[in-house]
Amino acid sequence: MNVTFSERMSTLKPSVIREILKHSSDPNVISFSAGNPAPEAFPAKEIAVLCAQILLEEPIAALQYSLTEGYTPLRDHLRDYMKSRHEIGRDFDELIITSGAQQVIDLATKILCNEGDVVLCEAPSFIGSLNTFRSYHVRLHGIPMYSDGMDLNALEKALKTEPNIKFIYTIPNFQNPSGITMSYHKRKQLYALAKQYQKIILEDNPYGDLRVSGDPIPAIKSMDEDGLVIYAGTFSKVISPGLRVGYTVAPKELIQKMVVGKQCSDVHTNVLAQMICSQFMTHYDYDEHLLRMKEIYTRKSSLMLREIDKHLSPLGITHEPVQGGLFVWCTLPDTIPMPEFCARAVEEKVCVVPGNAFLTDESAPCQSFRMNFSTPSDQQIIDGVALLGKVAKQFLA
Amino acid sequence: MNVTFSERMSTLKPSVIREILKHSSDPNVISFSAGNPAPEAFPAKEIAVLCAQILLEEPIAALQYSLTEGYTPLRDHLRDYMKSRHEIGRDFDELIITSGAQQVIDLATKILCNEGDVVLCEAPSFIGSLNTFRSYHVRLHGIPMYSDGMDLNALEKALKTEPNIKFIYTIPNFQNPSGITMSYHKRKQLYALAKQYQKIILEDNPYGDLRVSGDPIPAIKSMDEDGLVIYAGTFSKVISPGLRVGYTVAPKELIQKMVVGKQCSDVHTNVLAQMICSQFMTHYDYDEHLLRMKEIYTRKSSLMLREIDKHLSPLGITHEPVQGGLFVWCTLPDTIPMPEFCARAVEEKVCVVPGNAFLTDESAPCQSFRMNFSTPSDQQIIDGVALLGKVAKQFLA
Repeated sequence: MNVTFSERMSTLKPSVIREILKHSSDPNVISFSAGNPAPEAFPAKEIAVLCAQILLEEPIAALQYSLTEGYTPLRDHLRDYMKSRHEIGRDFDELIITSGAQQVIDLATKILCNEGDVVLCEAPSFIGSLNTFRSYHVRLHGIPMYSDGMDLNALEKALKTEPNIKFIYTIPNFQNPSGITMSYHKRKQLYALAKQYQKIILEDNPYGDLRVSGDPIPAIKSMDEDGLVIYAGTFSKVISPGLRVGYTVAPKELIQKMVVGKQCSDVHTNVLAQMICSQFMTHYDYDEHLLRMKEIYTRKSSLMLREIDKHLSPLGITHEPVQGGLFVWCTLPDTIPMPEFCARAVEEKVCVVPGNAFLTDESAPCQSFRMNFSTPSDQQIIDGVALLGKVAKQFLA
Repeated sequence: MNVTFSERMSTLKPSVIREILKHSSDPNVISFSAGNPAPEAFPAKEIAVLCAQILLEEPIAALQYSLTEGYTPLRDHLRDYMKSRHEIGRDFDELIITSGAQQVIDLATKILCNEGDVVLCEAPSFIGSLNTFRSYHVRLHGIPMYSDGMDLNALEKALKTEPNIKFIYTIPNFQNPSGITMSYHKRKQLYALAKQYQKIILEDNPYGDLRVSGDPIPAIKSMDEDGLVIYAGTFSKVISPGLRVGYTVAPKELIQKMVVGKQCSDVHTNVLAQMICSQFMTHYDYDEHLLRMKEIYTRKSSLMLREIDKHLSPLGITHEPVQGGLFVWCTLPDTIPMPEFCARAVEEKVCVVPGNAFLTDESAPCQSFRMNFSTPSDQQIIDGVALLGKVAKQFLA
């Protein structure tokens, strides 16, 4: 039969990155296009030990239906941890567990946005979130980025002129795709603007623990005296993405509605995975683990930046500073057309992600591309960046 | 700040059952209100063995990001199994893994329904699905039930008169809450009507493997020569609900759009859980396991029906026949007001679910209530039904 899809979904396509990742399954291709955490960083042995213990001691709790809000010991521990470590969470807030941070984005949009409402987001921004917003037929208004975060003049102009803005979406630490970290000063200003215009901030912080240089900057949520911020966190980058365990801290009123939404989406998050995260945080030295993660990411990012300096910088290819996360955002000189560069790179068996994939308007001109340093091996980083240099040279010749 | 929720979510309340379940946490309360599978049916030891093996042999596959469509070996095995065992799946169909069958309901609604569109559903029906439909601002049109399934005259009238019907939702086997099984004849007629009016059928079959009496009836999906049926299945009732692994078989065009939707919801389903289900199906005798499940459910349902015959039937309380599933749907005589009966039962520390919770219009008059036999112990079944008889007698005195 002839199926008519809903308006919200009819024009939504699979993520461009997914299409590019199909090339990556070829073992001869060097992929800088993924966003996977480094597999050597997974605490696989510890997870195996915890899993065995949980299924021996509490099999019914792990396998039976559970609360939509999440596994209580994990919620309790995480609430304390986020408060004591990051000053996140006040008396008016609550914390629930979600199926990855992606579900926080999904639920926040579902409970707040009517079709046609506006979400302000960084431009570029995370394609997964942009697609979630689009899947509710929300209109996206992109705010250009400087190297210290959003252009706040453009933000204020949007706040003044756009009707029906429901929230401001930001990834303040090591943003995907740009790698940009919002300065402390800008975080305070952004919060003040949100307060002035009475808009919610959706603060997405998947990479916060993966800082490789510089000092940590307080989360916007830590400034939230007025109950304006929905904070999205995840274990995907620090324990394992396959487990699909994320969390959100937000004012209770919002959390209650998100719980109703989550009941309708997946009832609750996989319990065994929640128990693994809970026990991993409490049975092992979590700080030590995070330190080990940082070492891995520091080494890999340094290596990629060194190779970029060697092969790409001399050709006029610039990049944003990298303080952490998984990505380097490179920009080609005007003499090299970005789409053709990325296409030629694929022919040379190196995949990067064309930057326009991360724009609110994918057809807008863009000279940037995203490179990932966490998934490829050291040798792949060395070979792949050299190949990109070779490709760039062909355009300059 | 003063939050305004989206129209779709602003009136949606947490499930009534959740509120009732709060009473159930009192260990002195006998709960017939849950929908949990029998904990003694979980293959906990086998899952522990598989889990250890997976995390030893394939830790990276289990812990890394994975495909939105699901773990390939599980998809492949399940596709063959559903085809050979249930004649489900044709060349134009595809199978993907979801985070429980609830996510199939969610994605189907998201891709097919605009706000204000109509979904036809059985009345009563599963509250979790009704709330998902409501969460997309869909209008529900309930079709009354006979003991052999939907009133097809009422269905055809609705098909003729309702504008913008997007699909017909049915649970043909041991329906939640009514326990009713749709006859083979009605399944064929329902399919013919869907074909005539070119409407999609969303066939939800969480309990199909839990038949305790009578012969299996082919799924509506097995008749689907025209690509009209979205089939929702789950491991929640046969392996474990805590793992949150479901699946759907539907025409490829629909599946592709559901995959885009799933990317926006939770990226993919927990991989370890998918690997456990995959290996459980292939490394153990799955038929033998299903047989063991049936024995447990046959014993528990027989016990509850025996006690109902002893304590409730003499008082004029009737019930639908039980061929499987988890529930008995009881109806009070007109002389006993249902809401007061359920409230008095709670005072006597027995919880059942008021039947109106499952109606499209929860304020409509209803004399029925739902009882679950899978979660309580044998002794609780014996004591609880006797207590319900005592409560009913008080109204008749």
